[in-house]
Amino acid sequence: MYLNRDIITLEEAQGLLQSVNLQTKTKKISTAEAHFYVLAENIYATFPIPAFRRSGYDGYGILNEDDHSFPREFEIIDNIGAGSVLEKKMSSGQAVRIMTGAKVPDEVGKVTMLEVTEKCSDDKVLIKESMKHSNISSIGEEFLKGDLLLSSGTRLNAGAISLLNAFGIAEVLVYQKPKVGILATGSELLKAGEAYVEGKIYNSNGPLLEALVRENGGLVITLDNVKDELHDTLAILNDLTSRCDLVLTTGGVSVGDFDFMAEAAKAADQFLFNKLSMRPGSPTTAFVHKGTPVIALSGNPGACFTGFYLFVEPTLQRFVGGKSRLKQVKLPLAHDYDKPNNFDKYLRATVNFDHDSGLIVSQIGSDKSSALGNLHSTTAFFKVPHDSSIHKGEEVEVWLLPYK
Amino acid sequence: MYLNRDIITLEEAQGLLQSVNLQTKTKKISTAEAHFYVLAENIYATFPIPAFRRSGYDGYGILNEDDHSFPREFEIIDNIGAGSVLEKKMSSGQAVRIMTGAKVPDEVGKVTMLEVTEKCSDDKVLIKESMKHSNISSIGEEFLKGDLLLSSGTRLNAGAISLLNAFGIAEVLVYQKPKVGILATGSELLKAGEAYVEGKIYNSNGPLLEALVRENGGLVITLDNVKDELHDTLAILNDLTSRCDLVLTTGGVSVGDFDFMAEAAKAADQFLFNKLSMRPGSPTTAFVHKGTPVIALSGNPGACFTGFYLFVEPTLQRFVGGKSRLKQVKLPLAHDYDKPNNFDKYLRATVNFDHDSGLIVSQIGSDKSSALGNLHSTTAFFKVPHDSSIHKGEEVEVWLLPYK
Repeated sequence: MYLNRDIITLEEAQGLLQSVNLQTKTKKISTAEAHFYVLAENIYATFPIPAFRRSGYDGYGILNEDDHSFPREFEIIDNIGAGSVLEKKMSSGQAVRIMTGAKVPDEVGKVTMLEVTEKCSDDKVLIKESMKHSNISSIGEEFLKGDLLLSSGTRLNAGAISLLNAFGIAEVLVYQKPKVGILATGSELLKAGEAYVEGKIYNSNGPLLEALVRENGGLVITLDNVKDELHDTLAILNDLTSRCDLVLTTGGVSVGDFDFMAEAAKAADQFLFNKLSMRPGSPTTAFVHKGTPVIALSGNPGACFTGFYLFVEPTLQRFVGGKSRLKQVKLPLAHDYDKPNNFDKYLRATVNFDHDSGLIVSQIGSDKSSALGNLHSTTAFFKVPHDSSIHKGEEVEVWLLPYK
Repeated sequence: MYLNRDIITLEEAQGLLQSVNLQTKTKKISTAEAHFYVLAENIYATFPIPAFRRSGYDGYGILNEDDHSFPREFEIIDNIGAGSVLEKKMSSGQAVRIMTGAKVPDEVGKVTMLEVTEKCSDDKVLIKESMKHSNISSIGEEFLKGDLLLSSGTRLNAGAISLLNAFGIAEVLVYQKPKVGILATGSELLKAGEAYVEGKIYNSNGPLLEALVRENGGLVITLDNVKDELHDTLAILNDLTSRCDLVLTTGGVSVGDFDFMAEAAKAADQFLFNKLSMRPGSPTTAFVHKGTPVIALSGNPGACFTGFYLFVEPTLQRFVGGKSRLKQVKLPLAHDYDKPNNFDKYLRATVNFDHDSGLIVSQIGSDKSSALGNLHSTTAFFKVPHDSSIHKGEEVEVWLLPYK
């Protein structure tokens, strides 16, 4: 059971995962349900906005030819509310009461704001002065018919949902959220709520991955635990890979007798990697089992969390036609880090903004891969290259997490 | 119907809203469903982690008294998998095979890593050298019993969910998500999918607010449209305020004949404001109707979006025991802005990070309050104080949005 392991770098491992062909799937969905989905089509304006000459204010519309010799009294011939249109024809000396957002009749050249008018009677209004502006938005002022509104690959946030609605678009083509199977391996795992048993631990990585998948746009299909038996592991892998687009496991990737995930990797259709020159998560393993990629993360919580963002998140984004949403920047480190290692380290961190010094990155909590206590407050990773120490103020490579 | 309006500043308006007493509600919820909720209790460690002396590696445990004279052969007396405990008692000259994460027997002083051992037969192992470290995590190394794990007010993200699970906590007290009623007013509104009617527009603000509420931790209870009739407006307000913790409306707040939301404000239990010295959204209105706060936003999409973040988002956070998640910073503007106004302007923007110049803010899209096209790409606002122009590179006040 001691497997040969060829050690590769993080970038090589990411490249191998990237080379796995993924099946993106799309579906038509109602705009009302499309929030948080990713568009799989370009959306073009099917009409201009404004679609008609729109009044910018509440006031009175008058003919261009009447726009002189104020103050002057006009006959009010009708009242155009937003959503209504004037049926009558206007003549010189007449005005029409018009509301913000209403369609301005073609013959009206200006809308006089209410503030410079005085109503004399039910059907008479005094207009006191000429307006500098027409107070009318022209057709297509913001969008012309055929304008690109949203590109394929856009995440449909609130603003995008409102834009689709503004064009009356009731259905859009989106990428299906990838179905992700999650498997926490280990005979030592108890479920929250179960009575404590000596020598065992509560499963925290399963729920961690479930929540991380949700935060990053995936659909958790199942959450199973499996005992440390090769037969059970393979049976559950067969089941999960047949039902899911991606399978994540945690635990069982080390060199021990019970590390069946390492064994399963060797039996896979396509083996990708099982040893990385990085900490945490050096035994992180990936393979393709019956056509479905399996990313086998460490059972150490810190390593599981970090591995999720370095390997799983970019894969989830590929299923929706995109790339990793982690933002890579260079920032100064707020403190010394003086624990050189023969592997590159990727440490959990937060980024703070200070008016004088700008953005600065700090390690948060423990740097141990077994640590649990800093996952909820981690908003970034920074890299400590192998065999090096870093001094306060030195720049490091930083990955900003998309969800905080 | 021309109401008196006392103009106040943004900060005064925010203060008035802040002074409204809100009823926060809590509930016990299963940890499995608690993702994205906000904790309403402090969570303390009920046991230490590790809860037992935990092996950091796969290897062989030996007694302290045997830690000398290597290489040396030991008798393997048992195999301790993670989750198991040794039932036997060890004697000198004996070793126990032990897996990563397993409970180390009390009498074992060190775990020798597999890499420096050689198995001689089924029950014999050669240990080649002494270990520098014990390779055993001590009890309570990360958490002691009674440690504060998560404070009341913590948003339960993936890391927090995993921490609760690690302590076997199956139920937590959380703030209930506030129930938010949304009302888009206006006879001109069509629903997406309906055939276009001349002079009308598709309702985009209703779906905008619905999605914004979801993105900011609220629960959308209902989404109704109402015609521009005072009687209908009041009836729907009565209904919504009886069922919701907060009511948002859009449209009907101007000075026109059909602006019934302005009228409803005057009839309310407690009037808060209806005129602000800011753009967009100067007619933004707020009041308390039958005990429930109502925030009446402009019908202009840009103003509706901006008003949501300046007034509604902080209110939503108060329902879950928190404060606004908008982050206020000062940053240089990437360009000139030379359209002074007698009101302060709050313009939609994005913030970019450039390695050399750091963080910088730029206006995005149109600055018109009627603009729709930049809401999905807005990640910040910046302020242009009244009667001023801003030159490229000058610092402005910036609000970073929590959800992008």
